[in-house]
Parts: sequence; C-alpha cells; structure tokens
Amino acid sequence: MDVDVVVIGAGLAGLVTARDLIRSGLDVAVLEARTRVGGRVLNRVLSDGTVVEIGGQWVGPTQDRLESLAAELGVATFPTFDDGENVLVVRGRQRRYRGAIPRLPRHVLADLGQAQLRLDRMARHVPLEAPWSAPRAKTWDGQTVDTWIRRRMRTRQGRDMFRLGVASVFAAEAAELSLLDFLFTSHSGGLLDRLFNVAGGAQERRFAGGSQVLAEALATRLGQSVQLGCPVRGIRHDSESVTAHADGGVLVRARRGVVSIPPALAARVIYDPPLPAGRDQLTQRTPMGSVIKVMAAYDEPFWRADGLTGQATSDRGPVRLTFDNSPPSGSPGVLLGFMEGDEARQAGRWTEGRRRQAVLECFARAFGPRAGAAREYVEMDWSDEEWTRGCYGAHLPPGTWTQFGPALREPCGRLHWAGTETATVWAGYMDGAVRSGERVAAEVAAALRDQG
Amino acid sequence: MDVDVVVIGAGLAGLVTARDLIRSGLDVAVLEARTRVGGRVLNRVLSDGTVVEIGGQWVGPTQDRLESLAAELGVATFPTFDDGENVLVVRGRQRRYRGAIPRLPRHVLADLGQAQLRLDRMARHVPLEAPWSAPRAKTWDGQTVDTWIRRRMRTRQGRDMFRLGVASVFAAEAAELSLLDFLFTSHSGGLLDRLFNVAGGAQERRFAGGSQVLAEALATRLGQSVQLGCPVRGIRHDSESVTAHADGGVLVRARRGVVSIPPALAARVIYDPPLPAGRDQLTQRTPMGSVIKVMAAYDEPFWRADGLTGQATSDRGPVRLTFDNSPPSGSPGVLLGFMEGDEARQAGRWTEGRRRQAVLECFARAFGPRAGAAREYVEMDWSDEEWTRGCYGAHLPPGTWTQFGPALREPCGRLHWAGTETATVWAGYMDGAVRSGERVAAEVAAALRDQG
Repeated sequence: MDVDVVVIGAGLAGLVTARDLIRSGLDVAVLEARTRVGGRVLNRVLSDGTVVEIGGQWVGPTQDRLESLAAELGVATFPTFDDGENVLVVRGRQRRYRGAIPRLPRHVLADLGQAQLRLDRMARHVPLEAPWSAPRAKTWDGQTVDTWIRRRMRTRQGRDMFRLGVASVFAAEAAELSLLDFLFTSHSGGLLDRLFNVAGGAQERRFAGGSQVLAEALATRLGQSVQLGCPVRGIRHDSESVTAHADGGVLVRARRGVVSIPPALAARVIYDPPLPAGRDQLTQRTPMGSVIKVMAAYDEPFWRADGLTGQATSDRGPVRLTFDNSPPSGSPGVLLGFMEGDEARQAGRWTEGRRRQAVLECFARAFGPRAGAAREYVEMDWSDEEWTRGCYGAHLPPGTWTQFGPALREPCGRLHWAGTETATVWAGYMDGAVRSGERVAAEVAAALRDQG
Repeated sequence: MDVDVVVIGAGLAGLVTARDLIRSGLDVAVLEARTRVGGRVLNRVLSDGTVVEIGGQWVGPTQDRLESLAAELGVATFPTFDDGENVLVVRGRQRRYRGAIPRLPRHVLADLGQAQLRLDRMARHVPLEAPWSAPRAKTWDGQTVDTWIRRRMRTRQGRDMFRLGVASVFAAEAAELSLLDFLFTSHSGGLLDRLFNVAGGAQERRFAGGSQVLAEALATRLGQSVQLGCPVRGIRHDSESVTAHADGGVLVRARRGVVSIPPALAARVIYDPPLPAGRDQLTQRTPMGSVIKVMAAYDEPFWRADGLTGQATSDRGPVRLTFDNSPPSGSPGVLLGFMEGDEARQAGRWTEGRRRQAVLECFARAFGPRAGAAREYVEMDWSDEEWTRGCYGAHLPPGTWTQFGPALREPCGRLHWAGTETATVWAGYMDGAVRSGERVAAEVAAALRDQG
C-alpha cells in the first residue's frame, strides 16, 4: 500500500481534503491532471506584473470556511471596489444608480422584488442535506426556472433582469435550470440578495495576491504529496483498496480514494468495477455552466473619477455584467466582464479578435469611449479547458435532484466524492469547495477508523 | 495508414456505417468494446432454447431503412401478438378493452385526445434537421413536458396516463424532458399514435430469431473488419489522420473516424486534441433513459385463451407496461414487462429476488394468478451496462437543443458522429440507428473524396 488515501484533483476541495487527512495522521497522495494547482481558481499575471483572478475570486459574509482557510494561510482580503454609482445599460443608454437596486420603472422593481421574496420563501423549504425531500420537491424539480419566471413575473424588463441574475449565478440560462436546483443553490448561499450583492454579498471581498494563492499556499504545505501532470484515467477499487492509474504509468494504491473533480469529469474516469447505475446516470446529468471571463486593463480606473463603481448590468451582450477588478493599489485600472450561458456559447465560437472587439464595445457602452481603448485584454473560456469543461459549477437539470440526488455524495465502496458540487453550504462557490473537502476528510477518516 | 475509416462501436449504426463504406470501396475497421455486436440490440436465450429480445426489438411502418436491412439480410418479421383485448389496471382492478384506447371515463379520454392533437400539431412545426429553428423553439425548449402536461391537461387520470406514455417512449419522466425534445422525437417517428401503437405503430412486428440477428448477420459479412473486446479509450486526431487507441495496446490509424456510441459515452473517450467547447458541453447534456426490461416464461401464453393480447397498462409499478413476447410458435408463453424512468431507478436498487417478486405481482394483477407463477424470469437493467449506461436512448434536457443542437451531428475535423441519437427520422429507435449509419457513411465517403 502506497498511501492511506489517494485524492484525485488539486482544486481547493482536493487540497483541503489532503490537509485535513494529513492532520489526522494519514498518508495522502494528491494526483492533479494539470501542471498547476487550483482547478477553477486561477491567477493571471498581466504584462506589467499585476495579478488578476481569471477564475473564482470573491469571498463574502458567511463563507466562514473559506475565510478561515485564508486566515490560516495568512492571506489577507480587501474589499471589491464599490464606491460610487452603478450603471444599467438599457437600449444602449447608460443609467446611473446607487446601491443594489437599479433605476427601473416602479412596476418593474415591484415585479422583481416580489419574485425574489417568493423565491426566497420557497428556498427556505429546501433542506440543504436532502433537497429531494422538500415538501414540493417533485413539482419544483419538474419545471425550469424559466417556466416559473414566465408564470410568475409580469413585466418583460423584470423577467429579463431576473434571467440575467440567474445566469450570473449559474452561468446557464433559466431555461436549463431545475427550479429545485435553483432554490437549493440559493438557500445554500443564504438566499438571493447574498448571491447577487457586492456589499454584504458573495462578491464582497477579494484575496490579496489573487485567489489562487490559497491553493498554492496549501500545495506548498502539502509538498511532495501533490503530484502535478498526472491525469487519472482509471480507478480500480475493491473491498480492500483503491488504485488510481494516471498517465505515464503513475499508479497509486491506497486504502480509500477521494474523487475531487466535477461530476461530469468524474464520469470520464474508468472505474473497475464500473460504478452502480444510479451514480453513473447522475454523472450524465451534471452539466457545467458556460462562462468566458474577460479583463481589460487601462492606465487608471478612470470610471472611479467619474463616480462609478465599475459595476454595470446590460440588456445587451456579449458582456452583460462587469466589475472593477483593479488591484488594491488602484493601478492599473482593470474592468472585469462576464459572458455567461448563451452569450458564452455564442462568443466561444468567435475568434479572439472578434470577442475582444465585442467585449470592449460592451465596456464602452457602460463606461464611455475610454473603456474601448484597453491597453491589455485577457480572457478565459472555461468550457474550453480540458480539465474543467465549464464553470462556475455543475447544475442538476429538471428531474435530477429528485431521482438521483443521494448519489451526489454517497460513497461507492471505498470511493468518496468531494468538490463544491457536493457541498450543502455555498455549493458552487469556493467556500463550498473548502467545506466539501472538510466534510469528505472527516468521512474518510471515520471510515478508515471504523471499517479500515 | 491501417485503414481508411475506423468506426467506434458495433451497434447497428456502426455496423451499417462499415457496410456502406466497404461498399464504397474503402477499408474499414470496427472496434467494439464488448465481446459481442449489437449494442442496445441483444438476444437472450431462455433455458429451453427460446430466443427473446432483451434490448430493442420491434419494427413498424415507415421504419423503411430497418425493413430494408432485414430484407437484405434475409431476416423475416412476424407480427407482435395483438389478438384480443388489452388490459388496464386501475387501483388493482383489471379492466379489459379493445383497440388502442383504454376504457376510461369520457372526460379523461377527451383530455388525452386533445393533448395528443395539440402536441401533434406542435410537433409538425419542429424541423427534423434543425429542431432549434422551430418557430417557438426557445419557448418549447425552456419548459419540461411535465410543465406542459400540468398546464394543458385537465384530468388527473389523463395526466397520469400521458406521463406513462411519455415514459414508454423515453424511459425518462416527463419532468426531465424538454418539450422541444419530446416534439422532435415525436415528429421524428411520425407523431404520437405511431410511437404508442402496436397495430400500425412502432411495436407492430418482430424479427424472426430475435432482433440481434440483424447485427450478427451484418458482422458476419464484415468478417475480420470487426474487432471485439476492444474498448476505445483515446482518439488522436489531426488534419491528416485519426488514431484510435483501445485496451490491450490495439491501435488503428485511419484517414477518418466515426464515433458510433451514445453521446454520453462518447464524452468518456479521451480526445487529443480535446474537442471544442460546444461539442464537449453537449455531451454533458445527453443523459440516457433508464429502463429494466424483464421477461417471464410460462408453459403457454394462457392469457390468449382468456381473450387477452398480453398488453397491459397499469397505474401501479414497478412494471406499468407489458406485451406478449412469445416466440412465433406460441410456446412457451412469454410476458414482457418494462420498468421505465423513476420505476427503473428505484427497482434498480433492489435485489434481483425482490424485483422478480414485484414484477410477477404486477403481471398477476394484470393477467391473474397464473402470471405470478413463471417458470423462468430474465431481466436486463440497461443503466447497469458499462457499454450502454441507459436505454432506450439519450434525451436532450431543457435548453440543450437550442443552445447546443448543431454539435450533435457536426463533424469535428476528421471525426464524425453516428448512432440513433444523431438520426433525424426515428431518432432513438433501431431504424434511426440504421439511418444514422447510412448518413454518416455517405458523409465520410464524400469528405474523403473531396478533402481526403
């Protein structure tokens, strides 16, 4: 036996799993396909040396396990720039507003407010440990979020704004999402305001040095336990042991295994013996969202001088959502844009040149012509990444939670499942990844203690 | 270069592809993971030597390409036994009726009839080559079939019957299915009556010797071109060639490749270079249905003497749909039962003993106590099959056709896609598999001619 536990994947979840297992006195090997750690958490260095986050990046209230990890690793946080007015672009025209609620006609605001109130009330009824046992689980899981929006929301503009909000959380369209999965995710993160907001919400703060430093610091502590460039292709498992086979003939035998990659990628590993029908069919039903994250750098964050936060929402794509992503020094100025769901799928087929132009046009519509003249442009299409294949996370299409839900976390013999998709709190977020690692490490340690 | 074309998968689609390519004068190698051909088409021999079909089995009007294949191979057909009355089991009580329409209260029949009329009218507007271009594609793809049923059908019993009809076609629940995908499939098979019916419908006739003889006869003609026990794990492809890597070091280099396995399994092959985002994300969204097919054998088909066809529909599972599947001789008597969708997922977790008992109880409720005393019981859970992972076919969940549809058939460089899921006519059926093979063979031959 090489080690006690083999962990597949060195994203936040896998690294935290390894940290905790080692703390329990166990030998651990982490096998990572890429030549870097962090998974969906990734820094990018601009040509002037500025570090920006091209993957998951924010931390907010109640994301306690992520906070705690950062504190442990000595990684500081700083507030997302949020001083000034936000921008709403409607039919090409810029409207400024202050706070979380855009300047929309009163009946549209009422429509949005009531939708949110109703959905929050429903979300509270979805048990985080077992969404399939919600009182109206079958009804909610049998319809898309779009169906709910069409039936319950009365204004065209309200529906459009709400669909954008949905896409900003899932990087998928309301038409794809199960209402139950939406309510679960919302409850899991502390209801809609917390998901949507900067101040007091999931976009509240950033990590000094970029979020990937968390993964890198963890990996440094784990030292030789983490092996990069080792894509695991097969896992043999029986009542005694687990053996992971990676490229290049790498072979790690362990008492238990933790698969800490998104379920859609876990489906692509060859299991011997094959996994039970329920687990296999679940992983046919866990598509990743689609997002292209882009950043444009400028000599300075000129929008700040104009009294703007850098946050814009637009009725027109491909970028419909922006943030100020400048470093704490405020220099250079960095605008961050998201193409999500349908927009990402369309723009993903374009050349980079065409995308760049379309993105800068979106920035210019929101922040004026200066935004069109970036000195640097970087982008990341997460659907194109062989070892991720979509972001932010997986969603469970209609009928999946109620028919296959338990298989998401239930171990298969000596194989255990981690990753933010398996979290009950902040599922789909970095905090959920950390929690899933902590949960699975405890699960594995207990199983080794009780059953060997 | 070993061959002109390498075909992955020796189901009907792959075998027909190979047949046509060889006819065009090309060298072909077919690599099949299993030690048998046929894929989802499979015979089972009962202990007395009787052959029954444990996979796809029927042929009906307008399935011309399947008919033509059978004629070419000299495989005769015979009618599905359909003489007498059918049975509807409601709250444990047997009701007999003649013809396709069960004896239900008049308002329930009206509800069902109107639903079917409306859905057929909508289905006609779904272009088979491009379902995403239907006039109301986005609306239809943004909702589940269950949403449509809840909104449009007025009687509880009608809704329940219709949901059963849906499950009988997709082996998935109405709650999982995109309305657009449902309408496409329905149009693809010639509208709902044709999908549902025995007489004049998709369950009209069977193949002498069992449907798998078609695959076996094709394979015999292909001879050494078909290599069994060769699971393809990786496909390298570039602008010049395609190389398939199978277990045991088998390596076939070709000018073009045809992947003729379900999309969810095609996702599990390692492509080098990786496939484009749109294709990859599509295959994260093509779940297979869930079905356990069971057969019970008796000394004779005693229900025939009782004036019954052997066809029963029940409001109670796990088996909610049965057929007479006796051999042409009428001896032994064989009852065929389907557990579909949710029923299959639940029963799949039971022991075989518990399943057998529950199945025979269902048969007894429909056909009396004699049906409870089978002399032999066989079953097949297709979700448990490593090289299929669900039946009858894949469905595209809400939002998939409209966002990823073209990627289902569009070649990626020198890689082409076959399988019944890629068919435009009788998609999901054996006939669709044959058509997809014929289509892709023509596509590949033309590409080789025009581009090499």
